[in-house]
Amino acid sequence: MMLEGPLGTDAVIGILGGGQLGRMLALAAAEMGLRCHVYAPEPDSPAFDVTRRFTQADYQDEAALARFAQDVDVVTYEFENVPSFTAHFLASRVPVLPSGRALEVTQDRLKEKSFARDLGLAVPDFAAVDDLASLEVAVRRIGRPSVLKTRRFGYDGKGQTIIRDGAVLAEAFEAIGEAPAILEAFVPFEKEVSVIVARALNGEVRAYDVCENEHKDHILHRTQVPARIDAALEAEAKAMAAALVTKLDYVGVLAVELFVLPQGHTHRLMVNEMAPRVHNSGHWTQDGAVTSQFAQHIRAICGWPLGDTTRIADVEMLNLIGHDADDWQALLAGERSAPHLYGKGAVRKGRKMGHITRLLP
Amino acid sequence: MMLEGPLGTDAVIGILGGGQLGRMLALAAAEMGLRCHVYAPEPDSPAFDVTRRFTQADYQDEAALARFAQDVDVVTYEFENVPSFTAHFLASRVPVLPSGRALEVTQDRLKEKSFARDLGLAVPDFAAVDDLASLEVAVRRIGRPSVLKTRRFGYDGKGQTIIRDGAVLAEAFEAIGEAPAILEAFVPFEKEVSVIVARALNGEVRAYDVCENEHKDHILHRTQVPARIDAALEAEAKAMAAALVTKLDYVGVLAVELFVLPQGHTHRLMVNEMAPRVHNSGHWTQDGAVTSQFAQHIRAICGWPLGDTTRIADVEMLNLIGHDADDWQALLAGERSAPHLYGKGAVRKGRKMGHITRLLP
Repeated sequence: MMLEGPLGTDAVIGILGGGQLGRMLALAAAEMGLRCHVYAPEPDSPAFDVTRRFTQADYQDEAALARFAQDVDVVTYEFENVPSFTAHFLASRVPVLPSGRALEVTQDRLKEKSFARDLGLAVPDFAAVDDLASLEVAVRRIGRPSVLKTRRFGYDGKGQTIIRDGAVLAEAFEAIGEAPAILEAFVPFEKEVSVIVARALNGEVRAYDVCENEHKDHILHRTQVPARIDAALEAEAKAMAAALVTKLDYVGVLAVELFVLPQGHTHRLMVNEMAPRVHNSGHWTQDGAVTSQFAQHIRAICGWPLGDTTRIADVEMLNLIGHDADDWQALLAGERSAPHLYGKGAVRKGRKMGHITRLLP
Repeated sequence: MMLEGPLGTDAVIGILGGGQLGRMLALAAAEMGLRCHVYAPEPDSPAFDVTRRFTQADYQDEAALARFAQDVDVVTYEFENVPSFTAHFLASRVPVLPSGRALEVTQDRLKEKSFARDLGLAVPDFAAVDDLASLEVAVRRIGRPSVLKTRRFGYDGKGQTIIRDGAVLAEAFEAIGEAPAILEAFVPFEKEVSVIVARALNGEVRAYDVCENEHKDHILHRTQVPARIDAALEAEAKAMAAALVTKLDYVGVLAVELFVLPQGHTHRLMVNEMAPRVHNSGHWTQDGAVTSQFAQHIRAICGWPLGDTTRIADVEMLNLIGHDADDWQALLAGERSAPHLYGKGAVRKGRKMGHITRLLP
């Protein structure tokens, strides 16, 4: 179903996924007086703790999905790997935003790269890989080093492997489970940046200032804003993000990750990937911008006017991974710092436990 | 029970009262990973919507209170009129913060004024009124105009009447229900300001910048920060607030309302009243300070380090009363504005429906 116009302030927002992003979406919705219904399969979903209404059920459970659809006025999600069945089942009953088209494009690295390239945006050279034979052809054309990634379900470095000189292609293909894949040219990027952009139901687009991201073990470690890039590149990054959401006829917040590459005395940008949702690199907006990315996403999917994306200070965001949050007493005492913890019980290696935003002097 | 040391991040916070303050406390606790259990008698309490655990029961319901106490690690409240029975019943089972002493003093205008005066702080002249005879004596001493207020349960201008020249004292006493009362000298104040101050379990005190408040029909209409007072008065206001929380051996956020009076070429301050809780005049801290008053209160009652009270911009807060929130689409579109709605269903005259904070240029 389509969202025909702005929802009332008595609306109920359906959220698929009960992790930290769902939790922070629910909190932002609550700040604006809205009620939420969180749907997730995991019994200990952190988002269940912050809402009166929740459903713990499988994404294939038709009866539970039907009840959920009946209880809510719009559905959104915290992750791009919403099963196609679930998205279609719900969309036939209630508006689902961002729309199915956004999921289709972003769930598949091959479609995603093709979509950006067809829009005239620079992307790393790439080729489809369906079997060992097509991998051999692809490597011959693209060269080494190159990166072999599964087309679907990859995140935080999972489902990918680098093909260097001397690597045996059959082993590389095996390493990613012989799944349908994409081979991408290895890009000698100087830094990674991202743009958090929002598009409203009426087509208005607003982008936040570009974020500069630093990863550790393939997981985001630190974001700083503003990014250390020049004004022309900053403007170009925002324009690329705007082009993507507009072409997708998108409603909600989208994150676009970009590579910054040296080019002579200056730099250029390439699209790395997109996420049709609020994004870890946008967490700084909670304390560093007038409107947080979470509030912005909720505004958009309600058909409401977008909020002011003005940045109010220079800011950094530090992820708390695994045992990083153990010393929370010290973290709490930090100057100009706001701690955000996700209410996750068990600490596991690589698990995102929280983050800290710090306003820089 | 006493709180012996810092609670863990897996703590459950009990909140008495399910209105907007309870709701915003619960949201702030959730941002720090904590779980909340809200206890309130009203079935449509807005705070119930933002937490998995809640109890809808009367404040005298011993069985429900006992279950509540068992489920939580600390209890706090959103309103100073917690029944004495409830506070004592819970305090025998679980730490209740701020403590019973704070409730005792602030629930009774006579005790409150006496407490501030005994601390050497200026207060309007006052006298106890128990019956018509003592009212006559009091008016003879304090003069007219003066203000007759019930000792207990007054807020937003309720339970008070002005005694002007020619007023019949028996009628004035009747107007406040012939309840135990206090007569206060009428103070020709120039403006009203407030200080939001927090005290930690270890005795550390941090005050936010002084707020300047404007009322309409006895209800807060607008707060602006910084207050338009000179630096000496600002420092004095903060020192008065610090003296009050320290003398009370207080843990949590306390609001102190002060009158600003002209005195020769300068100004002086008088304590008007205190609230042992987060306060409407501190809502600007949600978007205008590093740590919100809600997060600060939760930190304090958890025995955690206080957060940074630095103000990050000049800011105003506008209350949305009754039908003020009807045009929420326009409110949502305001520049440098963050809308906060409370999820209250029915609009009623004088009902606080939400507020807007705006960062000033």
